[in-house]
Amino acid sequence: LLNASPDLRQQIEATPVLHPREGLRSSPIAGVVLTGGDVDAIAGLLTLRERQRFTVWATQSVLDVLDANSIFEVLARDVVLRVRATSGSPFPLTRPDGADSGLTVELFTVPGKVPLYLEETDAPAITETENTVGAVVSDGASRLFFIPGCAAMTPGLAERLSGADVVFFDGTLWRDDEMIRAGLGPKTGLRMGHMSVDGPVGTMAVFEDVRVRRKVLIHINNSNPMLLADSPEGATVVARGWEVAFDGMEITT
Amino acid sequence: LLNASPDLRQQIEATPVLHPREGLRSSPIAGVVLTGGDVDAIAGLLTLRERQRFTVWATQSVLDVLDANSIFEVLARDVVLRVRATSGSPFPLTRPDGADSGLTVELFTVPGKVPLYLEETDAPAITETENTVGAVVSDGASRLFFIPGCAAMTPGLAERLSGADVVFFDGTLWRDDEMIRAGLGPKTGLRMGHMSVDGPVGTMAVFEDVRVRRKVLIHINNSNPMLLADSPEGATVVARGWEVAFDGMEITT
Repeated sequence: LLNASPDLRQQIEATPVLHPREGLRSSPIAGVVLTGGDVDAIAGLLTLRERQRFTVWATQSVLDVLDANSIFEVLARDVVLRVRATSGSPFPLTRPDGADSGLTVELFTVPGKVPLYLEETDAPAITETENTVGAVVSDGASRLFFIPGCAAMTPGLAERLSGADVVFFDGTLWRDDEMIRAGLGPKTGLRMGHMSVDGPVGTMAVFEDVRVRRKVLIHINNSNPMLLADSPEGATVVARGWEVAFDGMEITT
Repeated sequence: LLNASPDLRQQIEATPVLHPREGLRSSPIAGVVLTGGDVDAIAGLLTLRERQRFTVWATQSVLDVLDANSIFEVLARDVVLRVRATSGSPFPLTRPDGADSGLTVELFTVPGKVPLYLEETDAPAITETENTVGAVVSDGASRLFFIPGCAAMTPGLAERLSGADVVFFDGTLWRDDEMIRAGLGPKTGLRMGHMSVDGPVGTMAVFEDVRVRRKVLIHINNSNPMLLADSPEGATVVARGWEVAFDGMEITT
């Protein structure tokens, strides 16, 4: 700050100072639930190090990824608990001190693929395994779904989502060949394990018959035109009852 | 943006839009030189994925860390070259297309320890190995040193630094027992592989006899009081000819 330009100094001084809520260092993050082993799902753990007590819940497939990558040992195992969650079996979100949060989570498999960096074939099969899961958080009254990657809507998933209060859902691409048409890469959305927002079997279409109070598109690729507020696609998603997530979004129900 | 609050909308709209310099996607980063295998040295690679051509230079110890952690395979090896650098052997920084940047880099060992998450004993020895290196960048006329972790000044290091134009140097702690006194943790600075800024064998003292044009403290722990512009420690480092690095700092020589 001593050496900062006046502009930068002003910017730094305008930044709100966040004080820990307890002790010298603390974080409100008491637990992390992982829905996959891809970089965007797990690399954030590396910024939560090193002596912060919290619990990581994940399926065995994802815990195996953490175990196989020694860099995650920076989350010392006597400080950060790693707990196996089994898809289909709800578990209470407890705080590191054992206190109940009043919330339960259930992980459930959705159609997807193995993490990119673990792919062994050119076109890995889309399967429903514990490599890619969705999560539903419940306080006993309301249910919130978090499904950042999903390659297809299945009858089972539609039934599960029915009556949900909030669904955060995979909004990676607008159309399956978007990356190819834009010259950004050789892969379709399905090849990357994602269904598209538009189209006859796209997210907007398959949710038409699923009763959900608030539907929010997340995990959005920067090639997706719905990100532009003034695009026809941006207007379409809103007209069809969806919200597009943005940095700093807060949901109150 | 469609759903953003007026405040947030204003903030988003005020954010400068950075366009790629060439093609649909590009980055000015043509190469990355790693000086260690700790999380703060290598985790940033995960945000440079996936199809961006650049070269990673590192010692064998650090390349071994990348090889052992499959998450780094997200940097596809046919796109991101991994090149072994040997301490003491300067190499030209070439662009991915083979073009010469006009810069050479040399890595050199400094006293340090293995990365935290690879520690196998309670108090790993401070040794001078390719686990922890400094880097000197040269354009043939000027020399810039980057040494984010260093447990001690050696006669060899002092000689190497003599006459440098810019030195970025390990400023982790102000005093060796700072974390313990503050109740933030059980480790001394030396235990973490860092020498302290203050004290009779501290960084300010041992640089007194080393002729360097600009000296900048980096890699600063948030317990270090020199970070506060109005602290006596902050005034002391400036009075003794040092600068304290800050986000957005630019160096022109």
